[in-house]
Amino acid sequence: MSGIMHFYFDFSSPYGYLASERVDALAQKYDRTVDWHPILLGVVFKQTGMQPLTQIPIKGGYAERDFARTARMWKIPFKMPPVFPIPSQAPARIALWLGSREAAAAKAYIHAAYRAFFVDGRNISEPAIAAEIAAGLGHDRAAALAAIDDPQFKEALKNEVTGAIEKGVFGSPFFIVDGEPFWGADRMAMLEEWLKTGGW
Amino acid sequence: MSGIMHFYFDFSSPYGYLASERVDALAQKYDRTVDWHPILLGVVFKQTGMQPLTQIPIKGGYAERDFARTARMWKIPFKMPPVFPIPSQAPARIALWLGSREAAAAKAYIHAAYRAFFVDGRNISEPAIAAEIAAGLGHDRAAALAAIDDPQFKEALKNEVTGAIEKGVFGSPFFIVDGEPFWGADRMAMLEEWLKTGGW
Repeated sequence: MSGIMHFYFDFSSPYGYLASERVDALAQKYDRTVDWHPILLGVVFKQTGMQPLTQIPIKGGYAERDFARTARMWKIPFKMPPVFPIPSQAPARIALWLGSREAAAAKAYIHAAYRAFFVDGRNISEPAIAAEIAAGLGHDRAAALAAIDDPQFKEALKNEVTGAIEKGVFGSPFFIVDGEPFWGADRMAMLEEWLKTGGW
Repeated sequence: MSGIMHFYFDFSSPYGYLASERVDALAQKYDRTVDWHPILLGVVFKQTGMQPLTQIPIKGGYAERDFARTARMWKIPFKMPPVFPIPSQAPARIALWLGSREAAAAKAYIHAAYRAFFVDGRNISEPAIAAEIAAGLGHDRAAALAAIDDPQFKEALKNEVTGAIEKGVFGSPFFIVDGEPFWGADRMAMLEEWLKTGGW
């Protein structure tokens, strides 16, 4: 069975980053195409009354320990960024700008921006840094910078967020496959079982 | 490596029930003894500002779907109870009363009460029903009923909850093994990996 695997993520989400490093392999294995959806968790959280994991008492300490533990288990480089959480409009809009031209370019940018943040600790919420990462992949730096303030990509990001909320997305990472929702990097095993068996 | 596997659960927690059906097999496989800790999530949530999953907008619908989906995956009987969530003092205090006499009796009661709630839909928050389940296992019904209002077991439950909070427990199920915390039924695979490898 082939089809789309919708992958929703916020650039500020550690579990989103960890999932982003594994989603391609999973999709390939089951002949799926990943549709990458950058979203803004802050807007989503307003719908659910939730708040960032690391800011919840007690749970926050567990979460930070678990980010690192999960990364080690999956052998993915990870370092908690010095500035965290961050607003993620800048990289999200650049990803959508690139995606409006070529899906592969958007994917390469998403990986590069996520790694810049969660491996190198760079503050990708800053337009200059978000654009520099695009430039490092061979894109025009000024055009990348302009995309961040371009009404077209502001609108595109709003639509991604609205569309996600309409589909019941409430966290990052969030997967939807054949209408079935899976929330969390730690649900990728169940998602794989679902892909393998066609559901139960 | 042998030792205790601490298992924290609320009788009103669907994922706690699902984990309770798997924790024994996991512990046996790695030569661990399960220490069963009934807790009151409502009290724990006050520390973290959290609320019951099913009452969170959007997330609630996902949670109910996921309870059933997870149960089917693990082939555990499950039916969302008609009255839910419930306060769980009554079965928790009976479990602690039985545990003060014999660990195996407490465990058998925990399984029976959980199944009464999540398979048969009985409201185990009602003292008469909670006591009847104990009677069904051969214990004295009046003594079980009395345990619910006994200051000794009220105190014991308070201590369980306080102890859990002190150890950083913020949800159900929650496991602590050799000081390492694992939250959620869906983390039992990671917990198993940890038991198998001794950690990473």
